Amino acid sequence: METYDVITLGAGGAAYPAAFRLKKSGYSVLMIDKKGIMSGNCLAEGCVPSKAIIETVHNYSKLKKFGKYSIAYEDIVKHKDDVQNIRYKQHDEELHEAGLKILKGTAKLIDENTVEVETDTGKERYRAESIIIGTGSDTYVPKIPGAELAWTSRELYALNPKVRKLPKSIAIIGGGYIGLETASFMSLLGTDVTVIELLDRVLSTMDSGMVSKLVPLLPKMNLILSSPVKEIRRGGDMFEVSYDHEGKTEKIRVEAVLMAVGRMPMFPEGLDDLGIKYDKHGIKVNMAMQTNIKHIYATGDVNGLTPLFHAAKRQSLVAANNIMANHVPVDYFDPLSVPFTVYTVPQVAYVGILPDQAKKLGISYIETDYQMEKDAMAQVNSEMEGEIRLFFDSRMKIIGGYVIGNDAGNLINEIALGISKGLSARDFAEMAHQHPMSFEGLDSAARKLY
Amino acid sequence: METYDVITLGAGGAAYPAAFRLKKSGYSVLMIDKKGIMSGNCLAEGCVPSKAIIETVHNYSKLKKFGKYSIAYEDIVKHKDDVQNIRYKQHDEELHEAGLKILKGTAKLIDENTVEVETDTGKERYRAESIIIGTGSDTYVPKIPGAELAWTSRELYALNPKVRKLPKSIAIIGGGYIGLETASFMSLLGTDVTVIELLDRVLSTMDSGMVSKLVPLLPKMNLILSSPVKEIRRGGDMFEVSYDHEGKTEKIRVEAVLMAVGRMPMFPEGLDDLGIKYDKHGIKVNMAMQTNIKHIYATGDVNGLTPLFHAAKRQSLVAANNIMANHVPVDYFDPLSVPFTVYTVPQVAYVGILPDQAKKLGISYIETDYQMEKDAMAQVNSEMEGEIRLFFDSRMKIIGGYVIGNDAGNLINEIALGISKGLSARDFAEMAHQHPMSFEGLDSAARKLY
Amino acid sequence: METYDVITLGAGGAAYPAAFRLKKSGYSVLMIDKKGIMSGNCLAEGCVPSKAIIETVHNYSKLKKFGKYSIAYEDIVKHKDDVQNIRYKQHDEELHEAGLKILKGTAKLIDENTVEVETDTGKERYRAESIIIGTGSDTYVPKIPGAELAWTSRELYALNPKVRKLPKSIAIIGGGYIGLETASFMSLLGTDVTVIELLDRVLSTMDSGMVSKLVPLLPKMNLILSSPVKEIRRGGDMFEVSYDHEGKTEKIRVEAVLMAVGRMPMFPEGLDDLGIKYDKHGIKVNMAMQTNIKHIYATGDVNGLTPLFHAAKRQSLVAANNIMANHVPVDYFDPLSVPFTVYTVPQVAYVGILPDQAKKLGISYIETDYQMEKDAMAQVNSEMEGEIRLFFDSRMKIIGGYVIGNDAGNLINEIALGISKGLSARDFAEMAHQHPMSFEGLDSAARKLY
Amino acid sequence: METYDVITLGAGGAAYPAAFRLKKSGYSVLMIDKKGIMSGNCLAEGCVPSKAIIETVHNYSKLKKFGKYSIAYEDIVKHKDDVQNIRYKQHDEELHEAGLKILKGTAKLIDENTVEVETDTGKERYRAESIIIGTGSDTYVPKIPGAELAWTSRELYALNPKVRKLPKSIAIIGGGYIGLETASFMSLLGTDVTVIELLDRVLSTMDSGMVSKLVPLLPKMNLILSSPVKEIRRGGDMFEVSYDHEGKTEKIRVEAVLMAVGRMPMFPEGLDDLGIKYDKHGIKVNMAMQTNIKHIYATGDVNGLTPLFHAAKRQSLVAANNIMANHVPVDYFDPLSVPFTVYTVPQVAYVGILPDQAKKLGISYIETDYQMEKDAMAQVNSEMEGEIRLFFDSRMKIIGGYVIGNDAGNLINEIALGISKGLSARDFAEMAHQHPMSFEGLDSAARKLY
Repeated sequence: METYDVITLGAGGAAYPAAFRLKKSGYSVLMIDKKGIMSGNCLAEGCVPSKAIIETVHNYSKLKKFGKYSIAYEDIVKHKDDVQNIRYKQHDEELHEAGLKILKGTAKLIDENTVEVETDTGKERYRAESIIIGTGSDTYVPKIPGAELAWTSRELYALNPKVRKLPKSIAIIGGGYIGLETASFMSLLGTDVTVIELLDRVLSTMDSGMVSKLVPLLPKMNLILSSPVKEIRRGGDMFEVSYDHEGKTEKIRVEAVLMAVGRMPMFPEGLDDLGIKYDKHGIKVNMAMQTNIKHIYATGDVNGLTPLFHAAKRQSLVAANNIMANHVPVDYFDPLSVPFTVYTVPQVAYVGILPDQAKKLGISYIETDYQMEKDAMAQVNSEMEGEIRLFFDSRMKIIGGYVIGNDAGNLINEIALGISKGLSARDFAEMAHQHPMSFEGLDSAARKLY
Repeated sequence: METYDVITLGAGGAAYPAAFRLKKSGYSVLMIDKKGIMSGNCLAEGCVPSKAIIETVHNYSKLKKFGKYSIAYEDIVKHKDDVQNIRYKQHDEELHEAGLKILKGTAKLIDENTVEVETDTGKERYRAESIIIGTGSDTYVPKIPGAELAWTSRELYALNPKVRKLPKSIAIIGGGYIGLETASFMSLLGTDVTVIELLDRVLSTMDSGMVSKLVPLLPKMNLILSSPVKEIRRGGDMFEVSYDHEGKTEKIRVEAVLMAVGRMPMFPEGLDDLGIKYDKHGIKVNMAMQTNIKHIYATGDVNGLTPLFHAAKRQSLVAANNIMANHVPVDYFDPLSVPFTVYTVPQVAYVGILPDQAKKLGISYIETDYQMEKDAMAQVNSEMEGEIRLFFDSRMKIIGGYVIGNDAGNLINEIALGISKGLSARDFAEMAHQHPMSFEGLDSAARKLY
Repeated sequence: METYDVITLGAGGAAYPAAFRLKKSGYSVLMIDKKGIMSGNCLAEGCVPSKAIIETVHNYSKLKKFGKYSIAYEDIVKHKDDVQNIRYKQHDEELHEAGLKILKGTAKLIDENTVEVETDTGKERYRAESIIIGTGSDTYVPKIPGAELAWTSRELYALNPKVRKLPKSIAIIGGGYIGLETASFMSLLGTDVTVIELLDRVLSTMDSGMVSKLVPLLPKMNLILSSPVKEIRRGGDMFEVSYDHEGKTEKIRVEAVLMAVGRMPMFPEGLDDLGIKYDKHGIKVNMAMQTNIKHIYATGDVNGLTPLFHAAKRQSLVAANNIMANHVPVDYFDPLSVPFTVYTVPQVAYVGILPDQAKKLGISYIETDYQMEKDAMAQVNSEMEGEIRLFFDSRMKIIGGYVIGNDAGNLINEIALGISKGLSARDFAEMAHQHPMSFEGLDSAARKLY
Repeated sequence: METYDVITLGAGGAAYPAAFRLKKSGYSVLMIDKKGIMSGNCLAEGCVPSKAIIETVHNYSKLKKFGKYSIAYEDIVKHKDDVQNIRYKQHDEELHEAGLKILKGTAKLIDENTVEVETDTGKERYRAESIIIGTGSDTYVPKIPGAELAWTSRELYALNPKVRKLPKSIAIIGGGYIGLETASFMSLLGTDVTVIELLDRVLSTMDSGMVSKLVPLLPKMNLILSSPVKEIRRGGDMFEVSYDHEGKTEKIRVEAVLMAVGRMPMFPEGLDDLGIKYDKHGIKVNMAMQTNIKHIYATGDVNGLTPLFHAAKRQSLVAANNIMANHVPVDYFDPLSVPFTVYTVPQVAYVGILPDQAKKLGISYIETDYQMEKDAMAQVNSEMEGEIRLFFDSRMKIIGGYVIGNDAGNLINEIALGISKGLSARDFAEMAHQHPMSFEGLDSAARKLY
């Protein structure tokens, strides 16, 4: 049986950073992946391609003031494909340079040190001293009649995607971040967008105060809340989506339907036999990324902690560091300092503990804000809506923050660093942030408390 | 004689933040300003209007891939005027709300507590317990025959500026940041740009290694180095600029000339009589912003420390805090953590101690980098050139860094915070920066050392 | 009416640090104090004199191994008086140098800016822009028959105290820190000590786990728990203390009785008229030390937050800083990073959030320890009992810690700094603490998690 | 050939912390040591036994005020032996528990992965993937006629030492820290002490300003500076030490002579053959503790960086962490934050950059102080001499500090933490350090700058 120091299940952001780090330190590593390529959902159909489209539309929207430019969606998709191709190529080169290999196949855990892989040519077993489960997540498609008629993010964002022309109208089932990001750019490009959400608000996992500030700033879209979708049906060239709303069944006719109700962890086979603990949200891990079997790690979406590429990457490195220390932890993941940006237009980004959670935890907090309408760069970019809002505990240490508007996805990183390092309001207040950049809002907001 | 707690000489970024802070704490404050409005050079003809133009052109350049958009310079100027008007209006409102007043006139120091102001209606004297000198700087125009024929930044960037149409060709005298920013956007909009620099490199006050990486990435422009300009002469519709170069006198014919050789501090009258120490670079201050007379402060460009709006603002607040503590310092300015962004395309931004200075100080350093060609958001924005470069001392504490390329002016703020708080390479390495944002490069670069 | 910038009610640790700071910045300050001297309870009969006795006994106990030394209690008391005299003299000199004055009398708040003082010669009123209430606390003497027969800390610790010879036996009513510190040293010097505590454990306001580790290490003493004292009665040369215990009334005969059941805030008159909010624990303040009237501050024991001299001093400075900023807060008190040392033998010291409180707040924590029996300096000092115990949140940030044994009161300061600055287990683990000092235990303990 | 993951040359503080850490992570480790026991110079004849004597005398000196105690030196030596025995026993137990082994013998490097050991029974070779050289240092005995007549620290501090009675008079050759520590306690116990120092000041490697403050506070001793010792000669029951002084040869008659001129690194054989770089100060290493051969590390006194036990321990762990990462560094040593305490009476302790070095490096600094005569605990301990002195750079970040007097060896640790984490004067100023502990001086000193 071929033996490795480490086997990773998956070759995406939850696995390859670890593989590279371990390889650099002389460990033998085998990555096993269904797609057989180094890239998880993020590059395949997630954050990278979606942002390639959305940010192009976003840049474009900043210039609308200057004339009637039109931009062809097909060209944007081509740009997206270009970006994906560049990255796939770079990944290949990096893999090659590092001397790492990926086995295409489906992995199953046999015992605490053995993995069986089903490939095109049969089954084989591999042994490893340590295992990293980084199998990621997949789009959750609910059991609704006609669900198969709907696009998922794959049809929009995969390389050479099916959708290269925008529909005139679309129903997006699910008001989560994927739904709203897509809704955002389509609306800006002229599609008539309807979002149908089961719960009574969009972005339901996020802070309600923050979301209620974002929603009015979104591009024109029809939001239907508290409405379970019952059926999708083809009706000529169009689709009919029916949903319950306030006790009645309503119907909407659209050219396309996008299913965006959420994602679910993709567990490898064998967890139960090994007694690895998990529930529907993911495999249970400690902050050293160890499962209940200390040399088996679970990183990224599959543990459900913070299903984001950059969290997966960090977790993956935590696992690598702890494997190198032979499972006596030397590195720990800090979930509180992982930022989350929703690439709607305007963007919203947040990190740490926001009011909803603070209240739940019984933490009293002090808040302060900065309005984008006063911000020089927001004015320059014609993005004068939104705000920065920072939250401090009673000791004036930053515990959380969000940004809606100009450069939200940039600003959030400095707030995250503040949370990571236990900084205080005064630490922010005393910075001389670059002018004119919206980062100035961080010191301005903090200074209101001083 | 009217008496105030505090008088500020100037009403720009070196003065008004202090005025607002002091007023909020119940101090009586009089601002005296030549222009009579709350705004220094930055809003009048500096950072804000220049960035309104440049960043618009920059956003535009990101979209060039998608079609033959044209953008009218006149519309951009109009946008710039809009931004300035918005800000002037906001400043007025803020001034009004705060109950602060500005006296239009030229101030002269009479004694340690008395200021004489020459206004349209005569001279008057005012008394104050504390004085903040924040008189700023002005464009330095060298004594060259024909210098008066050249534009300064005023003609381009002032409200309702003279220049509303781009020249076909321009000679920019001075390869400092103002010269290169202007050169950058004009080149992108099609002007034939020649920069004539006295010294043997552009951005001569900045780190040579950094600048040598930036220069090849700038938009097409003709850089003539080591060349003192001798004369500007009108020649029909055109101008002739003659300069010495390698022992010979050369000539260039252009539609316009921009004088951008630097700025000089604007000292108020009376410094010598009071014995306040200064030299040509500025008034001497300690890090509490006190001159040698402890209740007279000098903030912003007039002290020459870090002639940037955001530094002025911070210094101004340092002065305010120390005035409130009756000149027993409670707050100190940290020059090392002030970032400086040059808004060329691509941008370059830096902070702290870079190699040239480290060598001069005898500090040994370790460097690490991240190449923008590998960066997802740089790829999305079609800005795949440039790099992040970080410098650490032998203890692995960050001492400086620069960014060339995508989001440089945003990224630099987090590096500055790291310098301010004494963070280490590992502190950066362990952050899970937002993906896909170029901030990821900060952790990637730091991780090369781990 | 005489007018001052600031009036302080009290002249102890909650007041004079502010007075000095304000005076240094040119504020006029009047301190009003019943005793008419600059010193609160701490110097008069609290921390300083008690530690002068206890630490002398403690040093003495370290040498017991080396022979039959005897030390006369009278000499220790003399040493204590020396220390108090030195400090009173130094305080006087400092007061004189600073040009501050103290008015002897009892202050009453008349309105938001007026204080009436009753002195030996009558009543007078003073006006101030800001007021700091730092009136401290006093020994709480419960209404038990014969309570007046018991000593309080005054008889033991005041300058030239009544008690200059140790009793052969003593009953200490109250197992708080004052009771146990006194019990500790008396026991070491040969007194037969009985502590009678109302509740079911001593040091009942402190973490139960920590206390249960301390108690077995204390010098020999008789602890009677869950026992309300009913009466103290003279019986010849002796006293009889009767108390209820498990349903029966018990009695004990002792040479002396010490009342040490706690302290209570000393409110000035006038709080109700002004509408200043308070309850039995103290005057309500925010972390800027402001009462509900923003220019009236309450600092030290009178607000009940953390009734310790060093907390009072810090709060006092917070008030001073905020007064200088005209009540727009620039400084905030951090209760979590205030250490508390009990000078028993061995000492116990703690700071931050310990398990009892963590559980109450729903914070999950990770703990680690270091045993003093392994510590070189503990061995050198023949203090091989006790431990360091550190608590981290799930992000590995330190949230609390305690030390029992050698140098506890020193070690706790570094833990406090760690809490103040948001440091992680690794930050401690990587320090090279001085060897052989018990501070080594801080890195050793942290390293168990790495 | 027996093969291990790691071989350490030495089994003292530079080696065993690494051995334990690596063993805990499953590495096979062989320690090779001349003495064959886990303990370097520190426990054998260095810091631990010397402090067992000195601190006992120190505690004793605090009580002198209270009576004519006498303490027998023989009892102190017995206490020292007790402490050493306890520690040797604990080390044995720990070794046994960890399953580590020590080979008694002299190691020689054969090639990059092979070590030859000469034991009592012959020579054997061992192979390892990584090697840690932690061979320590030894007393340097200069070639002076009669040098063999002098004691070294061995005769005083080794287990069951030769010297169990104090001489009436002693000449100590060398005014380094070992010389002065010994001089200190002997003087306090009544010995007539003369220190003869070659250079023009004692503690010549330390900051001159600090030392000049310490010297007048030392117990009575005769310091003869700028005086090379020429000869030691027996003269009846006494010794004659002759030395040059101001051009003349002088002589002194004493009962005993201690040689304490310094220590020198103990290099293993084989460095030259392998091309490992070193000079007389030690083996050259980077801050990851790697020699020029990246899998061979040199830690502790043998590299000459900071020849202190606690530095050795930290360096050893740095090596272990980097070995676990397969020589791709993940951990770095920070020499600036290593404190150094001299256990004279009073103690002196320092850390970071002090004025002499700052001047050499061209760093401008701001200093502040706190005088022990004002310190409550210093008064309690009758140690009212000395001071705390802190040094900050122009950004107000702490760069160094020293403490002379009460609890110096404790206080220095918090200053070290401040340097390690880049803290500012204000970070110290805002702490509420435990009262009455000399740590209060840290905030008081810092506050003078605020």
